[in-house]
Amino acid sequence: MKAFEQNIRKVEPYVPGEQPQRRVIKLNTNENPYPPAPGVTKALREMDADCLRLYPDPEADVLVRELADYYHVGKDQVFVGVGSDDVLSMCFLTFFNSDKPILFPDITYSFYKVWAGLYKIPYECQKLSDDFHMVKEDYYKENGGVIFPNPNAPTALYEELDTVEDIIAHNEDVVVIVDEAYIDFAGRSALELLDKYNNLLVVQTFSKARSMAGMRIGYAIGSPLLIKYLNDAKYSFNSYTMNAASLVCGAEAVKDRAYFEDRVRAVVETREWAKVELGKLGFRFPDSGANFIFATHPDHDAKELFEALKANDIYVRYWGSERIKQYLRISIGTREEMTALFSFLNKYMNR
Amino acid sequence: MKAFEQNIRKVEPYVPGEQPQRRVIKLNTNENPYPPAPGVTKALREMDADCLRLYPDPEADVLVRELADYYHVGKDQVFVGVGSDDVLSMCFLTFFNSDKPILFPDITYSFYKVWAGLYKIPYECQKLSDDFHMVKEDYYKENGGVIFPNPNAPTALYEELDTVEDIIAHNEDVVVIVDEAYIDFAGRSALELLDKYNNLLVVQTFSKARSMAGMRIGYAIGSPLLIKYLNDAKYSFNSYTMNAASLVCGAEAVKDRAYFEDRVRAVVETREWAKVELGKLGFRFPDSGANFIFATHPDHDAKELFEALKANDIYVRYWGSERIKQYLRISIGTREEMTALFSFLNKYMNR
Repeated sequence: MKAFEQNIRKVEPYVPGEQPQRRVIKLNTNENPYPPAPGVTKALREMDADCLRLYPDPEADVLVRELADYYHVGKDQVFVGVGSDDVLSMCFLTFFNSDKPILFPDITYSFYKVWAGLYKIPYECQKLSDDFHMVKEDYYKENGGVIFPNPNAPTALYEELDTVEDIIAHNEDVVVIVDEAYIDFAGRSALELLDKYNNLLVVQTFSKARSMAGMRIGYAIGSPLLIKYLNDAKYSFNSYTMNAASLVCGAEAVKDRAYFEDRVRAVVETREWAKVELGKLGFRFPDSGANFIFATHPDHDAKELFEALKANDIYVRYWGSERIKQYLRISIGTREEMTALFSFLNKYMNR
Repeated sequence: MKAFEQNIRKVEPYVPGEQPQRRVIKLNTNENPYPPAPGVTKALREMDADCLRLYPDPEADVLVRELADYYHVGKDQVFVGVGSDDVLSMCFLTFFNSDKPILFPDITYSFYKVWAGLYKIPYECQKLSDDFHMVKEDYYKENGGVIFPNPNAPTALYEELDTVEDIIAHNEDVVVIVDEAYIDFAGRSALELLDKYNNLLVVQTFSKARSMAGMRIGYAIGSPLLIKYLNDAKYSFNSYTMNAASLVCGAEAVKDRAYFEDRVRAVVETREWAKVELGKLGFRFPDSGANFIFATHPDHDAKELFEALKANDIYVRYWGSERIKQYLRISIGTREEMTALFSFLNKYMNR
């Protein structure tokens, strides 16, 4: 080892779901099978490249304004970032500065632990029940903040708003972040609770229901007080995060409510049909409120299934970690993609 | 104060140079007065919005490959990020994990202190000489890493490559980062030294010479060893940073070497003429190797000049901090913009 390597941070790099270059059936990263709203194409065509010589608007006004209109909140209640990962990372940095541990579920989005480690934030995982539900009483204890996804990932389970509110109501002295990457495929959003709790922050993304994973846009909505703190932190060390293309494309995507609702409906329809088909094949799964299904089979090893699928150019996600070793996460693709998946599984399982 | 505010990070937010919405002569953020290469417009027109539904390539291959070709280095020697601020912040996090202080000049890019604070990195500022040059012997002492811009900002002074190499040669046990945001307007780059020093990292940007501040692209070039550490850190907590538009537009910009060199030459020509004109008006300034001039006037207060210019829709940058209270930073615009500046100054000073 070179002397200068001593001061270098050593980490366990996260391995993202594969992005194969060949044409495969890609059900491994919860992307949307449909393209973004037509206005996005138009925005790209009409973009004046000359504007790129200037720094983008640090306040991201064009995008913030559309989001504020869409969700009927003030512009001072919206924060945007480079994907919800960027937004969540900034939230950890801004809101979780306590000696008491923050709380989140044991089976959940894997980056929570990473950001806690990065910013030296103590944390304590709360065990989900055997059927993967949150146990709300586990979040009554003293803590430095609370964060959980709803629907949860990778379980896809949606917790009713009553449960979410109960957790927030028991934690009014800390910031509670509800990470709603998949909420549009599920039920009521915690956004409904914003007027009652000014310690509540709701984080959403353009990567799933809005079909724009490639543009990297995420956002947080909360009280003006929380949003001000987030912006202060952001401006203090990186003023310009959102590029000009993401600002205009993001704004166009939000404007087209009809297209958005129609495509979400299509994904949900495919998902409900997929539940029936998976059931017929003998799979078991928590009821999904997301654009993926977290499935296990009593007679087939998940890892073997994963490998067999991959060998046949069907990519799903497998982790092999504690408590979820026998599960596959299957994104909802088009009807055609899902048909190909089921027909392969049918053949494979009935050899 | 609400109870939940106790755990919230309080910061002094950075105030970026103004981005006025009205049409003004904007010489305050060192943007390029010329549009990006024509290929960038073409890339935007031809972009298939459907690709946005997928996550972008986490390895940013299309852009990394072009940069590697352009600079005659391996693909494993290039790291890209969301502007050089993102790259530099990741460098601080990755390379500066020592109890010994890192070293940088007292007058320099203001974000160095911010990132050091953010990641709890001890630092020690080294005083520039009275004529704003680096005193290379100040960097011989024991330290946890070294970083400096060349040309420096906001002084615009370029240090000869011999000086740069001397500092690197005296610091082979730590990582040395040369922040070359403005190098294309100056002289020889530290990239020439890469084969000799594998603890050297050179950071550059698309925001200045490549006219793409609006697209947020920065990059680091160094030994495969350093680049591997940087990527490990990045993947560990944010896998997808560069969006699809910045990848293709960035690649197109790099491909057009002739356009790039021609536009750099135009900015340098305007700068050299601007030096003569500022001299005639009685300004003094360190010799600029950048796309801006850091100027002071013996008979006119810098702050008053700044205000008078602004009142007449000419925006330059003024800080008012220690040692540089009497200086204005003036970006190099088009010949027409500079003519308007000089004609206003002429009138104002000879009232």
